[in-house]
Amino acid sequence: MSLEFWFEFASPYSYPAAMRIEKAGRESAISVIWRPFLLGPIFRDQGWLDSPFNIYPAKGRYMWRDLERICQASAIPFKRPSIFPRHGLLAARVACCNADQLWLAPFVRAVFRANFAEDREISDPSVIADCLISASAPTAEILKQCQAPEAGQLLRAQTARAAKLGIFGAPFFVVGDELFWGNDRLEDAVNWCREPPD
Amino acid sequence: MSLEFWFEFASPYSYPAAMRIEKAGRESAISVIWRPFLLGPIFRDQGWLDSPFNIYPAKGRYMWRDLERICQASAIPFKRPSIFPRHGLLAARVACCNADQLWLAPFVRAVFRANFAEDREISDPSVIADCLISASAPTAEILKQCQAPEAGQLLRAQTARAAKLGIFGAPFFVVGDELFWGNDRLEDAVNWCREPPD
Repeated sequence: MSLEFWFEFASPYSYPAAMRIEKAGRESAISVIWRPFLLGPIFRDQGWLDSPFNIYPAKGRYMWRDLERICQASAIPFKRPSIFPRHGLLAARVACCNADQLWLAPFVRAVFRANFAEDREISDPSVIADCLISASAPTAEILKQCQAPEAGQLLRAQTARAAKLGIFGAPFFVVGDELFWGNDRLEDAVNWCREPPD
Repeated sequence: MSLEFWFEFASPYSYPAAMRIEKAGRESAISVIWRPFLLGPIFRDQGWLDSPFNIYPAKGRYMWRDLERICQASAIPFKRPSIFPRHGLLAARVACCNADQLWLAPFVRAVFRANFAEDREISDPSVIADCLISASAPTAEILKQCQAPEAGQLLRAQTARAAKLGIFGAPFFVVGDELFWGNDRLEDAVNWCREPPD
C-alpha cells in the first residue's frame, strides 16, 4: 500500500510534514505519492475567505507557537513568515505537473523552506526558479509548462479530488480509504500503511 | 511542574484523553489537574452556535471515523452517540466543584463512557447520579451542591479562564505557559512537563 501526502504550500503544518515524509517513507519501505492541492477553494466552500488561523486569532496564536516548538524538536529551520498565507498557486502547478519527477521532493522542500524558514515570496516566479534550480530541475522548461492551461486544469482537478475524498484542511495522509489529518498523524498513517489493523 | 487537563464532557477527543491521562501522569510521576469547562461560550465567541463537527460535515465525518480508530487502538470502548453534542453542563458543574476529590477521576471517566460508549443522556440527572454512585461519591449531597448558584459561578469563571488562556477547543493540556491541543498531544505535554526544553 502507498501513502498519499496531500499538502498545500501555504499551510503551516504541511511544512514539517513535507520535511519529514520522505525519510519516514524510506525507513518503512513505503512509497509516498505527493498530492499538492489548493486549500483556497476548499476553505471557500466552508465559508472562509481567509486562513482559519487568521479568522480565529486564538487558533492562529496557538498554531505559530506550536509550529515553532515542532520545528525545534525536529531540527527543522523556522522563521515566521511576515505575510500569511502566501499564495502557493505557482508552486502547486509545478508540483502537480511533475509529481513523478525525481526532483519533486527536493523542490517541494525548497519551496516550504523559502516560505517558512526564509520568509521569501513563493508567489514570485524568481523564487520558484531558485527552488527549481536548487532541486536540479530543468527550470526554464518547467516555468513555461506551468503557464499552460493544462497545468491549471490538472491542479483544479486534483483540488476537486481532495474535496471529494473528504479533505478539509492540510496536511492529510491517505492510506487506502483511511484519512489522517495533521503533521502529528504522519506516524499513524505510516503504521496503518505497514500493518493495517484487522 | 503539573499538567492541567482542560476538557469538556461533550467533546469527542476529550474522551480518549480523559481515559488515558491518569495513567500517563502516574507513569511519569506528574500531577494532573482536572479543569472542566464549557465549550459553548467559547464557540459562540468564534461565531459558532453548534459544534464545528456539525457545522462542517467533512470535518465531522472525519472525526467520527478517527475517534473510532483511536479508541480501537487504545482498547477504549466506543459507540457513536445518537445525539451530538450532548449538554455537559451538569457534569461540568459537578466536576468543577469537586476537582480535588479522590472520586473525581473515576466520575469523569464514567460520564465520558456514558456519553461515548453507552449512548446515554448525560444531561439527565439520573445518569449523572449513576456516574457518581459508580465513583463512590456522596451522590445526593453532590447533586444538591451543583444546583447552587455558586456552582454555576465557579464553572463560568473557569470557562472565562480557559478563554483567557487562549483555549479555543478541547481537550487542551497546559504546562506552565505552554498549550497543547488535542488528544494526540498528550504525550508531548507529558514530555514537556517532565523535561522542558532549554
